[in-house]
Amino acid sequence: MVKIGIIGATGYTGGELIRILAGHPEAEITAITSRSNDGKKLEEIYPNFTGWDGPTFSGSDSPDAVAGCDVVFLAVPHGVAMNLAPALLERGQKVIDLGSDFRFRDYRTFETYYKHQHCQPELTKAASYGLPELYRKEIRNAQVVGNPGCYPTSIILGCYPFIKAGVIDSSLIIADSKSGVSGAGRKAELGYIYPELFGNFKAYGVPLHRHTPEIEQELSFLGGRETKVSFTPHLLPIARGILSTLHLTLTKLITTSEAEAIIMDTYKGEPFVKLIKAPGLPDIKGVVGTNCCHLGVRVDERTNQLIVISVIDNMVKGASGQAVQNMNLMCDLPETMGLVQWPVYP
Amino acid sequence: MVKIGIIGATGYTGGELIRILAGHPEAEITAITSRSNDGKKLEEIYPNFTGWDGPTFSGSDSPDAVAGCDVVFLAVPHGVAMNLAPALLERGQKVIDLGSDFRFRDYRTFETYYKHQHCQPELTKAASYGLPELYRKEIRNAQVVGNPGCYPTSIILGCYPFIKAGVIDSSLIIADSKSGVSGAGRKAELGYIYPELFGNFKAYGVPLHRHTPEIEQELSFLGGRETKVSFTPHLLPIARGILSTLHLTLTKLITTSEAEAIIMDTYKGEPFVKLIKAPGLPDIKGVVGTNCCHLGVRVDERTNQLIVISVIDNMVKGASGQAVQNMNLMCDLPETMGLVQWPVYP
Amino acid sequence: MVKIGIIGATGYTGGELIRILAGHPEAEITAITSRSNDGKKLEEIYPNFTGWDGPTFSGSDSPDAVAGCDVVFLAVPHGVAMNLAPALLERGQKVIDLGSDFRFRDYRTFETYYKHQHCQPELTKAASYGLPELYRKEIRNAQVVGNPGCYPTSIILGCYPFIKAGVIDSSLIIADSKSGVSGAGRKAELGYIYPELFGNFKAYGVPLHRHTPEIEQELSFLGGRETKVSFTPHLLPIARGILSTLHLTLTKLITTSEAEAIIMDTYKGEPFVKLIKAPGLPDIKGVVGTNCCHLGVRVDERTNQLIVISVIDNMVKGASGQAVQNMNLMCDLPETMGLVQWPVYP
Amino acid sequence: MVKIGIIGATGYTGGELIRILAGHPEAEITAITSRSNDGKKLEEIYPNFTGWDGPTFSGSDSPDAVAGCDVVFLAVPHGVAMNLAPALLERGQKVIDLGSDFRFRDYRTFETYYKHQHCQPELTKAASYGLPELYRKEIRNAQVVGNPGCYPTSIILGCYPFIKAGVIDSSLIIADSKSGVSGAGRKAELGYIYPELFGNFKAYGVPLHRHTPEIEQELSFLGGRETKVSFTPHLLPIARGILSTLHLTLTKLITTSEAEAIIMDTYKGEPFVKLIKAPGLPDIKGVVGTNCCHLGVRVDERTNQLIVISVIDNMVKGASGQAVQNMNLMCDLPETMGLVQWPVYP
Repeated sequence: MVKIGIIGATGYTGGELIRILAGHPEAEITAITSRSNDGKKLEEIYPNFTGWDGPTFSGSDSPDAVAGCDVVFLAVPHGVAMNLAPALLERGQKVIDLGSDFRFRDYRTFETYYKHQHCQPELTKAASYGLPELYRKEIRNAQVVGNPGCYPTSIILGCYPFIKAGVIDSSLIIADSKSGVSGAGRKAELGYIYPELFGNFKAYGVPLHRHTPEIEQELSFLGGRETKVSFTPHLLPIARGILSTLHLTLTKLITTSEAEAIIMDTYKGEPFVKLIKAPGLPDIKGVVGTNCCHLGVRVDERTNQLIVISVIDNMVKGASGQAVQNMNLMCDLPETMGLVQWPVYP
Repeated sequence: MVKIGIIGATGYTGGELIRILAGHPEAEITAITSRSNDGKKLEEIYPNFTGWDGPTFSGSDSPDAVAGCDVVFLAVPHGVAMNLAPALLERGQKVIDLGSDFRFRDYRTFETYYKHQHCQPELTKAASYGLPELYRKEIRNAQVVGNPGCYPTSIILGCYPFIKAGVIDSSLIIADSKSGVSGAGRKAELGYIYPELFGNFKAYGVPLHRHTPEIEQELSFLGGRETKVSFTPHLLPIARGILSTLHLTLTKLITTSEAEAIIMDTYKGEPFVKLIKAPGLPDIKGVVGTNCCHLGVRVDERTNQLIVISVIDNMVKGASGQAVQNMNLMCDLPETMGLVQWPVYP
Repeated sequence: MVKIGIIGATGYTGGELIRILAGHPEAEITAITSRSNDGKKLEEIYPNFTGWDGPTFSGSDSPDAVAGCDVVFLAVPHGVAMNLAPALLERGQKVIDLGSDFRFRDYRTFETYYKHQHCQPELTKAASYGLPELYRKEIRNAQVVGNPGCYPTSIILGCYPFIKAGVIDSSLIIADSKSGVSGAGRKAELGYIYPELFGNFKAYGVPLHRHTPEIEQELSFLGGRETKVSFTPHLLPIARGILSTLHLTLTKLITTSEAEAIIMDTYKGEPFVKLIKAPGLPDIKGVVGTNCCHLGVRVDERTNQLIVISVIDNMVKGASGQAVQNMNLMCDLPETMGLVQWPVYP
Repeated sequence: MVKIGIIGATGYTGGELIRILAGHPEAEITAITSRSNDGKKLEEIYPNFTGWDGPTFSGSDSPDAVAGCDVVFLAVPHGVAMNLAPALLERGQKVIDLGSDFRFRDYRTFETYYKHQHCQPELTKAASYGLPELYRKEIRNAQVVGNPGCYPTSIILGCYPFIKAGVIDSSLIIADSKSGVSGAGRKAELGYIYPELFGNFKAYGVPLHRHTPEIEQELSFLGGRETKVSFTPHLLPIARGILSTLHLTLTKLITTSEAEAIIMDTYKGEPFVKLIKAPGLPDIKGVVGTNCCHLGVRVDERTNQLIVISVIDNMVKGASGQAVQNMNLMCDLPETMGLVQWPVYP
């Protein structure tokens, strides 16, 4: 059994980690922390865990609180993980950070976008970007993984096949994304209360959301040239799920069938990435509660545009499920362990 | 033109007052106050009022802020209106309180349920309970109106015909009510953020919600005997609307048609109360955005139960619309002025 | 491995059976039937099963279509299962009917409420009512199980402890229930299209829903006296979940704590029924996707009322999950096998 | 009073026309038709009109059914209006078609996209495209108006200022639009039932939705050069509202403030088009129930992209409200008559 610690377990990603790991046959959660909930039972914070027999919250978020754990998940605000990681690594623990501290190859990008000095520039260089479909090998050997953002996961998985195939102009990617409200986290803000968002829909964070540099970093690296992303996120009046509509410009005219073949070829054998073939198109409920990414594609010959639809559950493949997928790789367990289930429908 | 002041105009009921009064041909809003928004334009707080040319917020909530107004609406927390009212009345202004300070015939009931000392016991006795269908005459002559609570409005309008007709046992009324989330007000609390309530439903405030004594006061008065109410409110995952299901025990067996006739007879000529005849049943969308109360009824002969369904828009007939209806009566304007419109559907 | 056949697998309960059984370690789905989808793959009907490697639909719904199966689930309209069951039983197959054909101890009750002649009165007498918390022993030995209705499951589990304890007047039970729209099945009717129900809420089927006699049958049997139920169902604007608010009259004054103790005592050791202790109250999201029933209770001393809140997922404990629980019992497998998971939240 | 006839009044746009016209001081609805509802009262089809005292449905949809009307609205499937219009015009009635028969300057575009022969090529040439902000003068004098599609209204109003200002490359417009489900009409199809869409979101009609040629026609005409549109519509899980995100390529670098000035300059004096200034962005609830179009804009200097957000209520400015605005112009009434109201919020 892999002994698990979760630092900062009261947010939505922390709760989702517990939900997934509670059903994982080789994982045992031995420590969960929350500064504001010392000694409380999980079900006091998340009534959906009524009856769970795991540990109570420790109010400390020092590395000592997770002593004895093999893997430590960090579900803390940005700027916190970088301070915790060195001590954990020193004890030989593997670290998976669900925040942004270890996602950037160049720590200065982090500093620019998050307006926070990075105190572990070397460590961020050593960390793996935790997108297994692209970096499986590095992740297997990593001590620190920077778990990708939710929007970047959906966008990168959708663009990658076509950048790799060399059929699109990767200098500019237009990504029009729509996310459920859980992506904003579990926090009491007027803008997120139910009456304000019910029956509503809007864009936000235009034009420079913090996920932009993460997407650009990866797409530039994969394409071997500078990629810029015009990224427009929107807030859907649902709890979970991201759908990204990618507007790409073809440099070579291909058919929809050929575009589908490129996706299938790229993700052949991948357990979590699936093509929804035309005339079907992916929808959010097809992935909610699962670690899957569903892709669909259409060529618009008249305009030379390639439209890729990419959906994930922002809390699973976009956060905690992908983190467990990374844990499986780092611990030499079957990659899909604890992550196989069909979506609840309807 | 009636000059209007609104003290505490940033909550949902304040916003709804402005929406309704902005379309009222004989009303002119001349002052709105909000302690935390001094000098701001309404559209900075409520973007839906973009382009509105009314006054900016005054940061004062003293009576001076509404000097020159003919009618002053108080949309403030309980315990505040009782301090403001005397000075307003002294200047000859009419006062409509959307809170609970002036709803009780006996100020001690207020003190018991709201755990707050009442500093104007005489004034609360002089105030009218602002339910025009029952107290039209008193309201016309009132200087102070205590505008009813949303749940009480739906429940009292549903029970009244049958208490009056003497066909039910009014010693115990079971009221199972369901309300949209706007009823909780515009406040940032974790329990009300979108992801927590999306796809969810629950009861709350069982067994002793603060609206209970208000309902019991009115039903006891109307029936001429002590009525107790077992009131169970629930939170619907929608923004607006209340549906109350009233489980009443018949003392005399009547048919559904006879029950319908009792409703029609009671509310004959009422502009805002309508019967939805069997086999139809009222639904919330039939009243959203309007000042209407829709009633439906069924007799269950097998169990001797009378089931009454009563729906209102909690923000309109349950708050601001009813307040304007009261204003019309107090100012000798046509009762329906500014309040006639069909619901947006779907 | 238990070989499974599902007759009528395209409705929501059929899809849910497949979802649950696909994750069941001892079950293998070997035949699914749908008259209108002969030869089609499941994912053509339910895109959420994209990638599922089970059988394609057989267009026949004759017993031959499920030859070789150990257990056959019937997810067909009422009146159909009674014609299929005898041939299946003759081959030694166990039968679990998700419809109403085998729920009634007296076939005439079925005939009265469903307006359909019963051609297997003997078989309906032999069938077990598939509510394991009450009839575990009978179900273990049953060849035919009539799987309970969704509303009855929530209401019976909520009332049973107090009928058993003899603290309520069981001659009349008031059940005010609210269900997600999936309860109406997967059918194209104008009343169920999205715009009609969005932001809406209403009662329906008042006063004599077909689930009434099923509830009365069980509560009368359990209480040893005739019980009548005044049952008022409502339609919630969500996909899944039922919350029943039970208004019961105490014959003996007890406290809320004592009422909680009665629940705990009754369901001690039950894996799927949980008490949510005061001040908490059950909510629908706490059970969605799971086979759990959550109960909460409050005594209202002023009115002598006992208010019980009972929530289930109508598709799981209210249908397909309970059917699998019954299968586990009938096949001598651990009762919780394939049914343990935490709800997706938020 | 203008006498109004509505042919095909049972769909959502028909119901919305009645809602708006019922509050219009100079309009009187004298005839409504519905082939399948001869003799029925409106409230039998739309319970939200309970108490409406207008005409009952005529089962005929021949021109005789609307004899005596000054203006006839056609809310019928495409291909039907072209057969009705000539007889209406002959009697001197003004015709406003809410469908697509009279939207195209070249009838062959209609024939290509709608796969239906056009029997009135001359009439379609004579008809005005009913977007008052662009063609006010023509509409005033028109006998036939082709009322624009909902998506085209939102997209054209968002693009027009920048095409006119000559700051974008109008050869390719990327329009990523999201619509509430009422846009699909009031029809019973499995894909539109509540459980399927609840909590869901998806694209559809990619890449060649029927609104594409209408958008291209207008933008090409306005820009004086061929414009192609890559149009991707999505289905929002709400009842009403469209938000279009327009991804435009700047040919000249301007700031967000300059872009805002271009919008303000273009729509100066327009009663229904408003700019939501940065840092604000338009949201759907800001326009629901109103005839307004709200626009917001951002320049992304890094990518040379201009992102325009355009929201309307698809049923009002996107259909019936705009039709009434056109009626006002055609009948020499104040353009905003019957169309001024603030959105219900929240």
